Amino acid sequence: MNLQQLETPLLVLDRVRMARNIARLRERLAPSGVTLRPHVKTNKSAEVTARIGAPGTPITVSTLKEADYFLAHGWQDILYAVGIVPTKLPHVEDLLRRGARLTLLLDNVEAARALAAWSRERGLEVPVLIEIDTDGHRSGVKPEDPALLDIAAALAPVADRAVAPTGHAGAWVAGVLTHAGDSYNCRSPEAIEALAEQERAGAVRAAERLRAAGHRAPVVSVGSTPTAHFARSLAGVTEVRAGVFVFFDLVMHGIGVCDTDDIALSVLCTVIGHQREKGWLITDAGWMAMSRDRGTARQPVDQGYGLVCDIEGRPLPDLVMIDANQEHGIVRHRTDAAATPMLPIGTVLRVLPNHACATAAQHGAYTVVAGGTEVEDRWERFSGW
Amino acid sequence: MNLQQLETPLLVLDRVRMARNIARLRERLAPSGVTLRPHVKTNKSAEVTARIGAPGTPITVSTLKEADYFLAHGWQDILYAVGIVPTKLPHVEDLLRRGARLTLLLDNVEAARALAAWSRERGLEVPVLIEIDTDGHRSGVKPEDPALLDIAAALAPVADRAVAPTGHAGAWVAGVLTHAGDSYNCRSPEAIEALAEQERAGAVRAAERLRAAGHRAPVVSVGSTPTAHFARSLAGVTEVRAGVFVFFDLVMHGIGVCDTDDIALSVLCTVIGHQREKGWLITDAGWMAMSRDRGTARQPVDQGYGLVCDIEGRPLPDLVMIDANQEHGIVRHRTDAAATPMLPIGTVLRVLPNHACATAAQHGAYTVVAGGTEVEDRWERFSGW
Repeated sequence: MNLQQLETPLLVLDRVRMARNIARLRERLAPSGVTLRPHVKTNKSAEVTARIGAPGTPITVSTLKEADYFLAHGWQDILYAVGIVPTKLPHVEDLLRRGARLTLLLDNVEAARALAAWSRERGLEVPVLIEIDTDGHRSGVKPEDPALLDIAAALAPVADRAVAPTGHAGAWVAGVLTHAGDSYNCRSPEAIEALAEQERAGAVRAAERLRAAGHRAPVVSVGSTPTAHFARSLAGVTEVRAGVFVFFDLVMHGIGVCDTDDIALSVLCTVIGHQREKGWLITDAGWMAMSRDRGTARQPVDQGYGLVCDIEGRPLPDLVMIDANQEHGIVRHRTDAAATPMLPIGTVLRVLPNHACATAAQHGAYTVVAGGTEVEDRWERFSGW
Repeated sequence: MNLQQLETPLLVLDRVRMARNIARLRERLAPSGVTLRPHVKTNKSAEVTARIGAPGTPITVSTLKEADYFLAHGWQDILYAVGIVPTKLPHVEDLLRRGARLTLLLDNVEAARALAAWSRERGLEVPVLIEIDTDGHRSGVKPEDPALLDIAAALAPVADRAVAPTGHAGAWVAGVLTHAGDSYNCRSPEAIEALAEQERAGAVRAAERLRAAGHRAPVVSVGSTPTAHFARSLAGVTEVRAGVFVFFDLVMHGIGVCDTDDIALSVLCTVIGHQREKGWLITDAGWMAMSRDRGTARQPVDQGYGLVCDIEGRPLPDLVMIDANQEHGIVRHRTDAAATPMLPIGTVLRVLPNHACATAAQHGAYTVVAGGTEVEDRWERFSGW
């Protein structure tokens, strides 16, 4: 089967590009000896994740449904990297009883107290990371915030702090986690390097404060695709999380983390109409196929809803998807409507996405190619909560 | 079961509001006698669509997968309202052979020639609407465009034009379709009324030109939720399409088509953290649960990623979801961070969406309530192509 023969739209994954992207991050992290704990929220597929690390290797998830799915596919060492709340604890217990080695996250005393009480009552050992805010972009406590020690104390009574985790019923302070999400807004490698150091230093400082207060806190978890690729030091860090690095996307290209020919995902579509006087090609991939993500809108080069390539995946000069309806895309030359090639009705194109996580989430499967247009495989992906 | 007990995020559908919204459009269209052909791309659910019209009543779809699904659930009279291309014709044939009465759409001579040749070769009767561009927002030919008659001629040889459709092998010109998508950008009821008249007049004029050239062209199909609600005349129109009217959303509220308490969809979420100094509540509904749609960003009142309500669905004054990560929402008072109520960790909220089609598409089911918080039912919805 060839891409030319398939009904569009669909999501194409170039496994050669993906393998190169995975190797690149592994090689980068190898000298430091830190663990890679990939964030599988980007790919939501056992087939993809197995190519990052075999079942049994550590992963990060953004939903408990991801934990369910990957546990069922052989991944037990799972970090749930969204703040826990009491209504999710029955689901957590169910995962633990099915054999998950789940690490939880929180950033406030209320959740810590509830989790501590629940874990003791249920007789469950629960390693917990405290979320640290190193860039102001979302959740977490500042590295120097007095609340850090209050949260840790609410999790682990003084007498328990130095106890080895294995077989210990109850929650314990496994360490700290931070995510420098602001790295997506950087504009240069130097800015990413600086943010990576801020992320590292803040997380390490917070862990040191916990240890000084008597907590074991062995884990220092940092990460984002940009900082994972640009950090100059990982001193004191024990694990790095990243998700988008597997596929890359136009946002990553826009901040200098990858080239367009590293982007492993694209949306296959067909030209279904023309508006010649406006220089528009109409395609059958709208925002349902691309997502509504306009992550490049605030970058120096706005890629619209995506950069348009031929069926082989080669960018067509300055051809971008400038607008989208649910199942219609509007494609035009970036600046000069008259320069849009009026490709024939039925022409098959591939559109590189702004944001791999968002675009992939619109699809139920990856149609896999290896650098060309011959279809090798179809890998399911899941969605929902 | 009560909403309070459920794992979040999830999509809530208030069936009382939905029933009121459906009745409102039915009552509005009743005096004109035109057919309502709802666009099921918004809801993608047999349970929802059955409450608009029983199986057997006409529907509009945006994908052939929607056609597959609704045919399997008893809807045969299906308009596929995206321009047809040759790679989709085997799927069309499969639908026809399974009993679908499918109407297709196109706006160019190339597609018309291909469809005419294919339908004759396969011995299939295929009614075709020609897409008319009445507002410049997307596809279609202008009502006065000479190409209109070229397309019709490419579809139906002169000798066939006046033949009754039944049993007639081949494509035939069933009429015209237009969609005034620009109505989403209107800023007043008067502007919508004017656009609705432009939509109606353009479609009727195009149909008259086809009839003058000897084509039967019985169908004049117009629609969008705003124009369906504000058109002052439907003279010459035979059917009205609309999709969002079932649920409504903040974009429709922003242009004056509904009130916030008409909005039947909301995303249930939980407060998982605070950033007190910024007046932020962090929730577990991010853009994955809301979609990346920021349709109110260009309206006079920007609702961020959604308007925040209590668990009963009552808006909390000026509380909006100002930003989103994949599984995190950031909620704040619209203008005054200090005015954000620091709701306790675990508080369950409901967020009204910008765009019902986009938000619903992020979910695999509707959790159904009837005006309160007691869960009555769960209705599946599908996605993909």
